[in-house]
Formats: sequence, structure tokens, C-alpha cells
Amino acid sequence: MDTIARAKHELYEKHAGTIKDAVNAIHSREFYAKYVETPSKRVYGDTAMGDGLKSYQSQLGNDFPLRQIADQGLTSAEESPYTLEKHNITYPSFKDPARYIQEADRVSNSWCKADVYTRAGILTESLERISNRFFELCFATMHTTGQGFMMAFQASGPHSNDRALEAIALGLNELTRFPEKAEWVKPMGRDKEGNKMFVKLEKRYLPVPIGISLCIGCSTFPVWNTVPAIYASLITGNPVIVKPHPMSIYPIALVIAELQKTLQDNGFDAEIVQLAVDTPDAPITRQLAESPSVKLIDYTGGNSFGAYVESLPGKRTFTEKAGINSIVLHSTRDVKAMMQNISFSLSLYSGQMCTAPQNIFIPKDGIDTPDGKLSYEDTVAALARSVEKLATHPKMGPGTLGAIQSPSTFQRVADSRESGFKIIQESLHIENPDFPKARIASPTILEVPASQFEALSTEMFGPIAYVIPVDDYKEGVAIARDLATNHGAITFASWCLDEDAQNYMIDEMGQSYTSVAFNFVGPIWANQSAGYSDFHVTGGNPAGNASLTDPEFVLKRFEIVGVRIHH
Amino acid sequence: MDTIARAKHELYEKHAGTIKDAVNAIHSREFYAKYVETPSKRVYGDTAMGDGLKSYQSQLGNDFPLRQIADQGLTSAEESPYTLEKHNITYPSFKDPARYIQEADRVSNSWCKADVYTRAGILTESLERISNRFFELCFATMHTTGQGFMMAFQASGPHSNDRALEAIALGLNELTRFPEKAEWVKPMGRDKEGNKMFVKLEKRYLPVPIGISLCIGCSTFPVWNTVPAIYASLITGNPVIVKPHPMSIYPIALVIAELQKTLQDNGFDAEIVQLAVDTPDAPITRQLAESPSVKLIDYTGGNSFGAYVESLPGKRTFTEKAGINSIVLHSTRDVKAMMQNISFSLSLYSGQMCTAPQNIFIPKDGIDTPDGKLSYEDTVAALARSVEKLATHPKMGPGTLGAIQSPSTFQRVADSRESGFKIIQESLHIENPDFPKARIASPTILEVPASQFEALSTEMFGPIAYVIPVDDYKEGVAIARDLATNHGAITFASWCLDEDAQNYMIDEMGQSYTSVAFNFVGPIWANQSAGYSDFHVTGGNPAGNASLTDPEFVLKRFEIVGVRIHH
Repeated sequence: MDTIARAKHELYEKHAGTIKDAVNAIHSREFYAKYVETPSKRVYGDTAMGDGLKSYQSQLGNDFPLRQIADQGLTSAEESPYTLEKHNITYPSFKDPARYIQEADRVSNSWCKADVYTRAGILTESLERISNRFFELCFATMHTTGQGFMMAFQASGPHSNDRALEAIALGLNELTRFPEKAEWVKPMGRDKEGNKMFVKLEKRYLPVPIGISLCIGCSTFPVWNTVPAIYASLITGNPVIVKPHPMSIYPIALVIAELQKTLQDNGFDAEIVQLAVDTPDAPITRQLAESPSVKLIDYTGGNSFGAYVESLPGKRTFTEKAGINSIVLHSTRDVKAMMQNISFSLSLYSGQMCTAPQNIFIPKDGIDTPDGKLSYEDTVAALARSVEKLATHPKMGPGTLGAIQSPSTFQRVADSRESGFKIIQESLHIENPDFPKARIASPTILEVPASQFEALSTEMFGPIAYVIPVDDYKEGVAIARDLATNHGAITFASWCLDEDAQNYMIDEMGQSYTSVAFNFVGPIWANQSAGYSDFHVTGGNPAGNASLTDPEFVLKRFEIVGVRIHH
Repeated sequence: MDTIARAKHELYEKHAGTIKDAVNAIHSREFYAKYVETPSKRVYGDTAMGDGLKSYQSQLGNDFPLRQIADQGLTSAEESPYTLEKHNITYPSFKDPARYIQEADRVSNSWCKADVYTRAGILTESLERISNRFFELCFATMHTTGQGFMMAFQASGPHSNDRALEAIALGLNELTRFPEKAEWVKPMGRDKEGNKMFVKLEKRYLPVPIGISLCIGCSTFPVWNTVPAIYASLITGNPVIVKPHPMSIYPIALVIAELQKTLQDNGFDAEIVQLAVDTPDAPITRQLAESPSVKLIDYTGGNSFGAYVESLPGKRTFTEKAGINSIVLHSTRDVKAMMQNISFSLSLYSGQMCTAPQNIFIPKDGIDTPDGKLSYEDTVAALARSVEKLATHPKMGPGTLGAIQSPSTFQRVADSRESGFKIIQESLHIENPDFPKARIASPTILEVPASQFEALSTEMFGPIAYVIPVDDYKEGVAIARDLATNHGAITFASWCLDEDAQNYMIDEMGQSYTSVAFNFVGPIWANQSAGYSDFHVTGGNPAGNASLTDPEFVLKRFEIVGVRIHH
């Protein structure tokens, strides 16, 4: 074994225990996390936060260092939703996007031929390196997406790293699920002397990668929604081109920088994963997506571009698009805890999550509580109060809401005042003392009749929620199911103490391929999805055609070619 | 547990050992077969063949008994390629094909809700019942497809049953791979008193079937190419509509009859699997395929209809289309054994197999043998001689060739004489003493220059093969790879004793997702594919987008929906 080969093998050995733990967690679906989700000094060191902030600040206005080949620098349009200032970061790029394809083609053979344990070792090592930059990643995420500090740290740091590790582990598991070689011995009866006869074949099973993988990112979760795809394609041997959202490049560029360093340090080309940036004025995504060499496309974003991606012939696509998530209220043992939970789900990152609830169905005759029926009007009032209380809480408010990523989302909140629907709760202007210019809007709640199907079936991305009075919970479930089936949904939540009603909802929403959450109170929210345990998106309704990270998410990225040798 | 529930559970218990053996074989890829492939009296009983023949004869001209609801009888256009006589079998059918969809919708809930072990037990039981009709199935297959007796017995009988069992076993394995329930306990640090805190959720993982499955059969392998799809869809909980080729209905109708009986005997509706017949004059496939309720489509057949199936929006498709399979000759230790093997591959069922070789690349300076170089001309002559010898062998010839299923394939052989290419071997008219009217044509071999890419890239379904002189084996491999990549291929075979050359071919053909076979001699042929061990079709080139039976073949037929309950 030469030195490089040994080094690669050692990287796998170094991380074998971690990968095994991850594979076990994937199959037990019990809680597991390799990366600590709290930005704790004990874990990350006393200076980690300050160092991360300094790195972030010194990156602004400067060239972003990557190892990939490039022929120009492109200064991005990124700006902070907190300061409304441009970052002026310049990324290495190609004048002609076709050059990314050429580079990916050039390096693909070395990566495709690297054995899977080598790939697993290098990829897991890159996660370790990324974890040393979690705080810079956190600030980069805050100031592109508008996420609050804690969310930005968790979503782009430990949670993303764990989702990446999940993809590596499941990928390795599927790649090695069938033996590399088998001896196939078929009995063929007996010869004239009565001796048993056999045909014997040596068989081999070669996993062959599918081709260049294009990962198209979104503006709100530039890392969490992109790393599973990057690592799933890489572990299965495909070179990757990452085309981030033009307003959210910096966070994923950090991930790619560490990946490129780890690749190069282990004798591979940096271009096995390339960053391909563009600006809102001069998009390059279609040109990349339509290249015949691009075989795999992962996409997170709006419906119309998602439909375009899915319709491209000759591609295997993995999409996460928009959906309409619903809540149905039925009964609770603690109205206040329930309302706190719902209002946090609506307020977290100002509802700019694909998993955030939008339509809240409430029976007209109210909900069951330990004190008897709480009327529809009182239920709605309790929700509005809870949302306002969280938003105006001096400590909790700004940190939970974060900032609004795009001016159009901000405008949508303003426009919703003119929708003609009854305003239950106004969106408030909240001051963030640290960022006085921040683009902030607390959730608004409107009351929409169940008959207004057009409104209910339109996704209102951002801090806009509807309460919908219904005859009974079944009417709410029926509408929620219909919306999920025809317009997509990722989550469904209910507060319901009745087991028959729960089973009814599981059955109905299950048939629209929507995950179901019951009675969440305290520090657990329906719009969160846990690596190794929750399959994010089912792939069965219009909200997306793939699931993070189920076996198909990695299996579609390679095929097994059989070899039979008669000796 | 009620009586029916207990009975179902007992069916699973009855077959649990078989299913476990199948799952183990799938993962070891070693030889396994549940059903004996020889039509032996010891295994199947002294009277089985005679009884099967009688059943076949008494079916001709009569109504075919099925348990499904119908509103008319439809007399098929089926006729025997051996006798050229019509079967005049009348199948129950619906005047309006939309009625099949309605019936599938009506019964889907009961099957979808049946637990997976119940489904596995019933489905495996149906295979046992089918095995009691292997001989009738054999004669039905002979007299629709034109397969020879032995092939018809094996392909539609034991081999199909094993492919079905493989789908059941892998389906059950994937459905139960993740736990039904998990307790997810997330540590949340410590409270003020220093006690550890947790969030605890009950999680459930529900496999939800995708919807109505349409299985579109082909004329030449009406059972072998259809049962994997039927059983894969059924084990995962989807109702199935089988639309056989209008000229090859009887064999798969037998399978469906036994499935329907097994379903009904265990308290389920027969319509969970329906036969939907048509005639060449009044096809119903498009109407079924385009129904919004049909979510899964399995298809075996020609390229243009296959491309149509793949392009249907909102469907998950599994296709096996045409391809151009190649042979490259390099070196051998036994010219005669090699030629016998190749000529059998060309002659078996007159080349009417999707896996049969078409283009045989031979270096212009000949091939290496223990006696030195065998010149190109002598190699070609040896091949022609071997093909002729097999065809004219009184015992082996007719049984190997079988009959030509369709007049258009027969015509293609005749037309090939006018192609302008040099005729190396004429197609011979072979007499089958048992069936003097049989439509028979032995393989013709033409010499085609490597520059004639148009000819090389056109599939000549049936007993037509090309020999192509090439500068060296690498030129042959390059063309074979190109053909596979752009026009599809399922198999590639070579006779080659040089390990470097073998590795070169594995690498090149692997990158076109084509399985590779080396040095087959004796009773093993590259155009055969073994259940549990060989993945039939890779899904990676235009020959088809699915693989029998890899994990995706079952995984795409359901999604897992997560349920989280906070107690």
C-alpha cells in the first residue's frame, strides 16, 4: 500500500466508529447526534465565538479563498437582512459555466474509482474540519438568511453536519450492502457416473456512479438543505457542482472550502466539488441543469423552477418545493403550553421554513380542555395573545424571529393586510437592539373561511398564518389532506387527546404522504426534523419528490453493474 | 385475534423460512432457487405433464375462469406460433377500461391496510399454487410466445416464481427495515437542580403504498417479465392491473387466477389484482396508463412506447426496453466450446430475448487460442458452422430455436437478406416434426463493417446477428460502450483470457451500465439472468430505467410517513 492509500485508509479507520454509530441510529431511528447543537464554550472552546465573528468580519469585502480552478472573480449580490449592507465578497468563478462541467468531467474518474471507504473517510474528515468553523458559519448564515443566532448556529452547523454524516453513513451502507464478490455455484444434477455436477461462476457487483451532480441551493437554508445532497452524491462517487442561491453563497462556500482542502490534502482534486456562483441578474442554473453531462439534480426552492427541474429529460432529480402545512386543533390538556408551542412554530425564523404551519383549523364549537370547551373565539384569542407575547418579549422576540431574508417576503406580509380577510393579529415591527435596521416582521394571523380554497391553497411564505373555522376536526383534516395531496405539505400537527381521532388523522394525512405530530409542548416543534430519525419530506406529494435521507436518496446516485466470470 | 387474522398469520409462518432463505440469498448473491427448474417427474409427479397438457387443451376455445368482476367476455387474438391456430379463449373484461381503475380503487384500502406479514404470507402461498400449474403454464407459454418446451417451462414456471419470491422477500425486507416504532429521547441539559432533562417522543414509521400499479406485459416473456412487478407492487400494498400483450395473455392469466383464488380464500377481494385484456385492434393501454389514479407503471417492450411511458407526468415508471447487446472476442482456451456457447446464445428462442447478443466484434488479426492465432475468417467460419450445426441437430435444433412469436420478426429475418451486407450464415428453415406448420427461422449472420453505425445501432430483434471486423478488441469495446450508452444494452459478453483486457472491458462497459460476462462455456449463457444473484438490467442506460430486483424496484412503490407523538 503506498503512502497516500494508507493515509486514506487511516482516515476511514479514524471515523469508522462514528459511521457505525450513524448507521445504527439510522436503523434504530433513536436519538443520535455527533455534533453538539449548543454553542457551548465547554464544547467549542472559550474563543470559538469571538474567533468566528472575527473571521466573518474580515471576510466581508474580500476574496473568498477556494482551491478550485477559476478564470475570474465574481462579487456576489449578498447582503445582510440585519444590516441591509452588501457583503462584497468575491468568489472564484468561470466566465463560461460550461467550464464547471469540463472540470467535473476531468476529475470524475479519480473519485469514481476511489474505494468507498476512502471516500467515506475523507468526507467524514471534512465534517470535522467544518465543525471548527461552526461560528463563522453561524454568522455567515445569520447575515445571508436572516436566521437568528441560535438557529443559524444549529441549522448550518451541527444539524447540517449530522445530516451530512447521515448521508455518508447511509450511502456507505447501501454501497456495501451487497458483496463485492460472490461465488455462485449452481447444481446441475449428476453425470453418468453419479457424481454431482456444478456450474461455478465468480460474480462481482460494481457500484457505478451516475454522473455529474448539480446541487441547487435556496436562500433560507443554504447549508442544511444542500449538504445532504452534496454528501450523498460524493459518497456514491459523483462529482458535485453546487449552485447556491445568489443571495446565500457565503455559508455553503465555507463548507466547500473545507471539503476542497480535505480532498486536496488526501491526493484528490479540489474540483470534485465546485462552487458555481451567480448573481440575480445573470443566472446560470438553467445552463448547468441542461448540460447533458449533468445526471443528478438536487433542488430546494419554489414550485415553478422545481417543476422545470423535474421535467428535464434524462435527469434523476431530488426536489423540495413549497407546501401548505396545516394544524388541526381538537383537544389539549394545557391550552397555554399548546399556544406557546404553536406561536413558537409560527415565529421561529418568522415562518420562513418549508415546515412551518400556515393553515390552522379550529372547530367552530371550540376545543376540549380540562376546563371544558374553549370556544372558537377564545381559542383564536389565546393564539393571538401568545404570538404577540413571544414577539414582544424583549429577550426571546428578536432572537426567535430573526430577520426577513427577502424584500418580497417582507412585502407579502404588508400585502396580506389588504387581502380582505379579518385580521386576528397584526404583524408588529419589533426592534432588534443589536441591528436597528433589521428587516423584521412578527407573524400576522388572518381568519379565512373554509370556503376560500384559493387562499388556503396558496403558500404564504413567511410570517403569515390563517385560522380557519371548521364544522369539526374532520373537516379540517379533509381540507388539510386535500391541500397536501394537490399542493404539497411536509408537516401536519395536531393537538388531540383522543386516540381514535389521532388514528383518523394519521390515516388521512398518511395517505397524503405528510408527516404527523401530536401534542408537542416544551422545547420540541413540529417544524423541526431530526437527523437519523425523521425522514424530511416523504417524496409522495407535490412538496418534493425526495426524502432526506431515505435509502432512495443515495441509491438513485449509482447503479450496480454485475460481472460474471467463468474460470 | 379473529379466525381470518389467525389464518393469515399462519400463512406467513408457513412460508417464513422460505422468505428468510430468499432474503439471505439476495444479500449473499449466492445460488438459490426455491422452485426446481427441471420438469422432473420426481419433483412434480408422474402425471403432472400429461395433466398440464390436458388442462391446456381443454382451455382452448373456452372461457378463462377468473374471480374478478367483469361485464363482458373478450375473445383474444392469441394464436400459436407452432400451429398458427387461434386459441379462441374468452377472458372476463370490462367494456370501459375505466372500470378496472374503479375496482382497483374500491379494494385498495383493505390491501393497503393489511399488515406486511399478512401480504407476504398470501403472496408466497400463491406461488405454491402456481407451481401446481407449471405444466399448463409451460404449454400456454409455448403456444403464445413460441418458446421451446424447456424454456417455456423454466422461464414461466420456476424461474418466474423465484423472481416473484425475490420481489416478495426484498419488499418485506425493505418494508420492515426501519422499526414500526421508536422511542426518541433527546437530552436537553440539566435543570436548575442539576437533574438531567429530556424530551421524549414516540415515533412511528408507516409505509404508505403509492397507488394503483399498471403492469404492461410483452409478447415474448409474458410471465417472467411481469411477475416481478406484480409481486413488488402487491407486497408493498398497491392494487395491480395487469395489461398483458394482446397476443400473450393466457400464461399470465393463469398466474392471476391463482393469485385471485389465494386472495379470496384469505378474505380479500380478487380485484386486488385484475387482468385487463385487449386486442391488437382495440388497445386500452394508453387509457389505463393516463388515468390519474395509476401511479406506478411497469413496462416491458419496444422503445417508442417505453419512451411514452417514461414521459407520463406524475407516474413512477419501471421500464425494460430494447438494447443492442455486444460480444467482443479476444482469446479463448477452447474455440469449439466458445462457439457452441455463442451459437446457443444466438439460437436460444431464436434470439427473441432482450439479453441475446446481436453485434459480435472480432479483431481483424484474429483471436488468441492455445494453437496460436485463429484468423478472423476462420473465427467467423467456426461461428457459422457452430450455428448451423446446432440448428440442424435433429434433437437440439427445434427445441432450442422454438418458434418465431410474431410474423414481423419472421419478416425481419427475410428482409435482412436484402440489407446488402455479406451473408455469413443463411437463416435455415428447420422442420419441427411435432409442429410442421411452426414459424421457425434459425439465426442468420451478416458481416457489417464497423463504419456502418446506423446498422449496428438498430436492434434486429430475433435470429439476426452481425459479425463486425475491428482493428483490435478495444475498438469493439468502444463501439459496444457507445451503443450501450446511446441505445441501451443489457448484456455484454467476451471470451478473453487476459486479465488486463478483462479489467479494461469491465471498466468501459461498467461505465455504460451494462453487465459483463467472461468465458462462458457449457450450460451457462450470458443471456440468462439468475434470480437472487443477477440484477437484470441496471437502469443506467436506455435499455431500461429499472432493475430486477434491486432495492429501488420495491422502494419506489411506497413512502414512509413519520408520526411523532408527545405524551
